[in-house]
Amino acid sequence: MFKNLEHIGIAVKDLEASKSLFEKLLQVKSYKTENVESENVSTAFFQSGETKVELVASLSEDSAIAKYIAKKGEGIHHLAFAVADIRAEMSRLKEEGFTLLQEEPKKGADNKLVCFLHPKETNSVLIELCQEIG
Amino acid sequence: MFKNLEHIGIAVKDLEASKSLFEKLLQVKSYKTENVESENVSTAFFQSGETKVELVASLSEDSAIAKYIAKKGEGIHHLAFAVADIRAEMSRLKEEGFTLLQEEPKKGADNKLVCFLHPKETNSVLIELCQEIG
Repeated sequence: MFKNLEHIGIAVKDLEASKSLFEKLLQVKSYKTENVESENVSTAFFQSGETKVELVASLSEDSAIAKYIAKKGEGIHHLAFAVADIRAEMSRLKEEGFTLLQEEPKKGADNKLVCFLHPKETNSVLIELCQEIG
Repeated sequence: MFKNLEHIGIAVKDLEASKSLFEKLLQVKSYKTENVESENVSTAFFQSGETKVELVASLSEDSAIAKYIAKKGEGIHHLAFAVADIRAEMSRLKEEGFTLLQEEPKKGADNKLVCFLHPKETNSVLIELCQEIG
């Protein structure tokens, strides 16, 4: 079951500059920064109601985020929906004809198991499913 | 004051096909479709927790959405934050150095007054402020 829009990921070049910008915009402080070693990225989180804004900056030139920015520039990178049971959703969506980018959920930022759907079937929107690790 | 992420706007070519796709993905029915004459668009809304997903399709070749899709393809078009007092936020953000795309709030979809910020100052993310018309 899909629960809610958990966060929006925004690809940025300069994490500190973008943090300061979003602090001005939203008038809240970022409540956490976290490096995700498996993705070679650094992230900063803001809470906005029940949804988070996640700024994502690359820590290396060959990360997926670095490649994304080189190709498309900064901007909204993905939408993440919280799900109750990520494996159940992965099976359901595969049967519905969506393409999963991982066969198994992987460890993402913010204590989550995550899986992405290929944007070719979702109007070019990169969709992440995420389940809190209990 | 910024309240919460009110909705995410996704630019799509074919509203009916995308509606059916997001119904499959989110397992909820779209609760409303609405034409916004001033923008020459047709929209469909989904609720996901406290945030809405708004699919936006063009009704004419010269609408902003048609131009966006021609240039960048389908995908996430804007993030809309609910604000308590749109004019107060517009003044505050202007003073903070953000660029407003409207000097006066305009009537948007879903019974809202809206104003957009220029994406050049927000990591290429088009930000909408919206205030429910009371």
